[in-house]
This record gives sequence, C-alpha cells and structure tokens, in this order.
Amino acid sequence: MGNYTITVLPGDGIGPEVTEQAILVLDAIASRYQHTFTYHKRLVGVAAIEAEGEAISDESLALCRQSDAILFGAVGGRSDYAGRDKVKPEQALFKLRKGLQFFANLRPVKPLKNLLSASSIKPEILQGTDLLVVRELTGGLYYGHLEPPVPGKPSEIRQTEHGTEAIDTLLYTEAEIERILRVAFEVARDRQKKVTSVDKANVLSSSVLWRQVANRVAAEYPDVAFEHLLVDACAMHLIRKPTSFDVIVTENLFGDILTDEASMLAGSMGMLPSASLGTQKTAHGRLGLYEPIHGSAPDIAGQGKANPIAAILSAAMLLHYSLGLKDEAFAIEAAVAKTIEEGYRTEDLREAGATIINTQQMGQKIAAAV
Amino acid sequence: MGNYTITVLPGDGIGPEVTEQAILVLDAIASRYQHTFTYHKRLVGVAAIEAEGEAISDESLALCRQSDAILFGAVGGRSDYAGRDKVKPEQALFKLRKGLQFFANLRPVKPLKNLLSASSIKPEILQGTDLLVVRELTGGLYYGHLEPPVPGKPSEIRQTEHGTEAIDTLLYTEAEIERILRVAFEVARDRQKKVTSVDKANVLSSSVLWRQVANRVAAEYPDVAFEHLLVDACAMHLIRKPTSFDVIVTENLFGDILTDEASMLAGSMGMLPSASLGTQKTAHGRLGLYEPIHGSAPDIAGQGKANPIAAILSAAMLLHYSLGLKDEAFAIEAAVAKTIEEGYRTEDLREAGATIINTQQMGQKIAAAV
Ligand SMILES: CC(C)[C@H](C(=O)O)[C@@H](O)C(=O)O
Ligand SMILES: CC(C)[C@H](C(=O)O)[C@@H](O)C(=O)O
Repeated sequence: MGNYTITVLPGDGIGPEVTEQAILVLDAIASRYQHTFTYHKRLVGVAAIEAEGEAISDESLALCRQSDAILFGAVGGRSDYAGRDKVKPEQALFKLRKGLQFFANLRPVKPLKNLLSASSIKPEILQGTDLLVVRELTGGLYYGHLEPPVPGKPSEIRQTEHGTEAIDTLLYTEAEIERILRVAFEVARDRQKKVTSVDKANVLSSSVLWRQVANRVAAEYPDVAFEHLLVDACAMHLIRKPTSFDVIVTENLFGDILTDEASMLAGSMGMLPSASLGTQKTAHGRLGLYEPIHGSAPDIAGQGKANPIAAILSAAMLLHYSLGLKDEAFAIEAAVAKTIEEGYRTEDLREAGATIINTQQMGQKIAAAV
Repeated sequence: MGNYTITVLPGDGIGPEVTEQAILVLDAIASRYQHTFTYHKRLVGVAAIEAEGEAISDESLALCRQSDAILFGAVGGRSDYAGRDKVKPEQALFKLRKGLQFFANLRPVKPLKNLLSASSIKPEILQGTDLLVVRELTGGLYYGHLEPPVPGKPSEIRQTEHGTEAIDTLLYTEAEIERILRVAFEVARDRQKKVTSVDKANVLSSSVLWRQVANRVAAEYPDVAFEHLLVDACAMHLIRKPTSFDVIVTENLFGDILTDEASMLAGSMGMLPSASLGTQKTAHGRLGLYEPIHGSAPDIAGQGKANPIAAILSAAMLLHYSLGLKDEAFAIEAAVAKTIEEGYRTEDLREAGATIINTQQMGQKIAAAV
C-alpha cells in the first residue's frame, strides 16, 4: 500500500536479463501486497560509456540519490567498446559507492538445503551455514582510480631514478573503522549475536588500528560474542568450518576476496545477493544499492543461461533494508526456496535429477510462487 | 657423499617438535645416501626475544647467510613473554625474508590420494590437483613494521586534524615484479607449463603494472600457457576447479591469503611445506629457508598432536632446492606417501579406519620408510 521509486541500472552482459527477472518478481510482490513500485531505468557501465561518455552520468547519480533504492545488474566484461582507454565500466561502481557513501556492503551466505550438493564443499561441512559478511566499501586500497586523486593517498604508476614503480595506499580513519564495526554489531543483534573481525594485524598498521577500534566498539555490545581472526586463517576456516561464523566484518579488499570464496559455499555465485548501505535515510529505511555479487559474465550473456536468483534475492534485500518491507522480503526468499525445492535449476546448478530451465523461466516460476 | 651445513631455527609452539622429526628424517637420508649434514641450532621467535632481546639476532642471521640452507619451525603464538610490547616474534620472519632477500616463496599443494577424503572439498573436485603458488615475499604491503621504515612507503598510525588514521603502502618496482614472474615461468617449465598470474588490475595501480610486466615476461616463454586472473575470482576457482591450476604467481598478501585457502585442499595445513628462495647461490643450489606453512599452534604444543609432515616435506624441498639432491628429496616424498598409505595419521587427520599416532611416531615411521 506504499509508493516507492527504484532506480534500475541493468548494465552490461547478463545484467539486463537478470535484472528483468528481479523486476518481474518485484511486480508480483506489488500486486500481492498492493504496493506501487515506480522504476526509473538508466544506463550504466559500457552501455553508458558508449552513449554518454561516462560509466555513470551525474544526472543518473542524482536520480539514484532521490530514489528509495537502487537495483543494479552488473558492469564490465566487454573490452571492444569506444572510449575503453579512457573510461572503465567499474568506475560506475566506484562512483556509486563513493558518491552515495555506501560504506557498508552486506553479503549473506546461506546455502539452501536443496543446494548443498551443488557446492564443491562436502554437504556435512556446509549443513547449517548461515553467515553474513559486512565488507567496508568506501575505504582501504580502493578509489585510487577515482578522479581527482585523494591527497596523501597515492595510487599511481610512476618513473623514478630506479625505474618504474607502482604504488597503492591503504588508508583508514578511526571514524571509518568505527562506523562499519557498528553496522556489524547491530546486524549481529538480529542474528546469532557473534561478530568475527578479520584483519592482518601481525603485518599492517591499518589492521592494528582496526583491532583497537573493534575492541572498543565490541565493549559496547556485551551481548554479542566477539573474536579477531587473521585474514589468512579466515580464508581457511571459511572452508573448514563455515558454520562457526555468524557476522564477519572486514576491510574492503579482504571482503572482496573472502566473499567470492564464501560464494562457493552456496553452490554458485548465481545465488548470492548483496546490499550496499550508507547513511542517507529514505522515508522507510536507508538508501541502498542492491546487486548480485556475480559480474557481467559476457560469455553467457543473452543465452538464457544466467541464474537470476542472485538478482531476485537482491531485490528481497532492497525490500528489507531500503523500503522496510520485511514480510515482502521474506516472501521472495520463500518463493526462491520453494522453486529450488521443486527441482528447478538454471545451467550453473546443473545436476542429476534437476529440471534445467532458462533465466526467464526461473524468474517466472519465482514470481508465480510469490 | 657431500657435506652440508644447515641452520636450524625451531622457534615456538609446535616448531621444535616438528623440526625434530624433520631432522630425524634428514638423518635417515644422510645414512642411506652417505651425506653429512651439520646442524647449527639457533633461537628464533619468542624464545629468542626472551633470551636475546630480539626475534632473531644479527649473529644468527649471519650464520644463516653462511649455511647451505635454513630449516625453520614456527614463531609466535604466546603473548605472555617479557618484551612483548617492543618486539613481535614475526619480526624474525620479516628479517630473514628481507635480510636474506628471499623474494620467492614456493608453496606446492598436491593432495595425497589417500588423503582426498580428509579435505572439506569433495574428492571428485580434488582428484588430480597439483598446483604451486609462487608468492612474492619481500614487497607489497609487508615490511612497514621493519625498522628503519622504508622512505616513501609509510606504515603507521598517526594523528591528523581529522582524528586518528592508519596507513599502509603497497609498493612494487618493475624489477621486483619481473624477477618473481621469471621464477614462476622457470618452475612452470619443469611442471605442466601453465602460469596463472593473479592480481586486482581493475582496482590497483600496482596490479596494472604487474599485468604489464607479466605480459612482457610471458612473451619470452612461448612454450608456457599463460593467463591473468583477478584475486577474487582466484579465491573462487581454487575451490571450484583446483585442477585447472599449475603455477599461480601473485603478490605478497594475495599469496598469503590464497595459500592458506589452498592448504584446505590438502586436508590439513599440517601437510604443506614451503621454500623461500633468493638470489644467493650456495655450492649446490640457492640459499633457501624451509618451513611448514602452519604456525606455532600453541594450543597443541607439547602434546604430541602436531603433524610433522609439513616440516618433513619442507626438509625435502631443502634437499631439492638448496642442496641439489633431487633423488633424496623424492625419497622423502615417497616415504611420506607410503606412511599415509599404510593408514597412519596424526590427530589433525583423524578419520574412521586410520591409526592415530603421535608426532614422534610419525617422524619415526617416515624415517624408517626412507
Ligand atoms: C568489479 C570490482 C571492482 C568489484 C570490487 O572489487 O569491489 C567486484 O569484485 C565486487 O566485489 O563488487
Ligand atoms: C606470520 C605471518 C607474518 C606470515 C605472513 O603473513 O607472511 C604467515 O602468515 C605466512 O604466511 O608465512
């Protein structure tokens, strides 16, 4: 019974086809719960570079800022476009994340019970896994590629008297660390009440500060269990004992690596949604950007092989975090689980006994189940 | 029939007990092949901090430099030692790596066929895995903790007008990148002739330079297949398709994370050796440092539960790379495989049907098999 505006950025490769299915499912929610979703579609990535000369235009960014939420597909993958020497499609992500200050990236990993066998990990190890990675998204080694460069934080290739060298800078302020830790502890309170803070404090100064701040914030949440873990050990434990985790909080690049690794627990990257949240409030929650964690997968684009579930579950996170519609979000999750339970699979999850359907059919099944 | 001197640095936690077994096996090799190994044992890690005030003394470093090879156990794990505010045990590793310019860290992962079931990964995925990670070991984000600090490469926590911040610097020169790439291509020639160079070129300037240099070096090895892979994708493929890799080459911190992850393919960290090589030649090969990739594991130290195989296989790499004794190295590998085949396991590899033996017994079995 509410009215909501969603900026839709389908992007490149399989982005448009999976986003289309997410919208189909949102429309099913709209009619079941009598909401009105107004979609504003804009170009992003290679499509935007070719048409507008930028990976995302300032006008599109402004539109994002005014909407209740942003639904994002994927960017990149093609290297044969005009302007490729000047603009990279990933710039769109950096501009959105940095421009809208989406500092908290939430990546839940909860393998569906009917998909345990699809993973490379043994089912008995996976059983019961339900973790959430909270990745810092606007600091660290990233954003060197942004113009103008950040003072005191070089990212460049340069000539010196000893030859060519390249430099990147990992910088975190105490305030940046503190706010992401708070997000982790807050979401842990709604979950199993355990936070694992991941760093490399035996090597990095930034991790030493991270650990100090984490200890200070943790003291304010005595009801939440807390531990530190080195990033290398975490890469190991994710495979060996994934059920030992509830909320993992970590810096930008560690989060990038660990979430791709963790995606393997769910059988396929095609299953995993994400939310990027900042501080900007909307009428019903926080402004956020929602995207599947998979990329543009140009090799399978346009063939109906892409799994739309990551995009559809991203739409569920959108309902939950930006629109405050938790029941509706849960209805989508239940519809996905039901469709998988009935044996329907896209190509990435092919296994004996499954009924393989295409991208569009998967979207329709899930929309119908809603 | 040769004479060789080996500096032995047992270190902390389980370091001494696993190193002792490696020496037992080296002694078995000495008597079978009529070599003479002279061992010089020195303190390292917490043991050295307490006795000598430093994680490794200059005198021990000098001794290392004069020997044919260094056998290293593990450092760290205890936090209750005198001087803990001033010196960290990891300093020993940094000083050895940086001081002796061990820039190439070789970490082979080849799960034994009788241990496939010990891994969290499904046996059918593991079957045939035989990969080698070549990790750059003296550059990148590391070494901020070394004194004196490297000019132009800050690693510090500092006060600014906006509050406290922490910075680390990721710096690579073209020459550093080139030499590690060459190691990768050279070892690939003795293996399956495939190199995967891992970076984050869509974000980091250092990775953009890494990729340029890698392309240039690759052109000199037309007989070796070559590909680039983003670090996040690599973290995924390691689990999904480990058999697709032969040699993986990457920068310091990526290598740290990916090798811990890859260790899970072998069933236990307790199985994985490593070699750190530089440019210093010895009479029979290159000076190198050999260590299990596991740490000091203080929780199980002194209980006979530690798996000495990683240390024993490290001794095999020592024979191969620093002493040029390839047959002898192979004899150790065969003895390990035979002992595992006979069903003997340490605690970390407990499974139904296995005969659990302690650290010392495992060393003795393998020495006897030599
Ligand atoms: C495309 C790339 C820049 C991006 C990142 O590294 O953040 C992606 O890997 C992700 O995880 O969203
Ligand atoms: C102990 C630590 C400093 C070290 C590293 O990060 O290099 C360890 O994890 C390793 O992989 O050898």
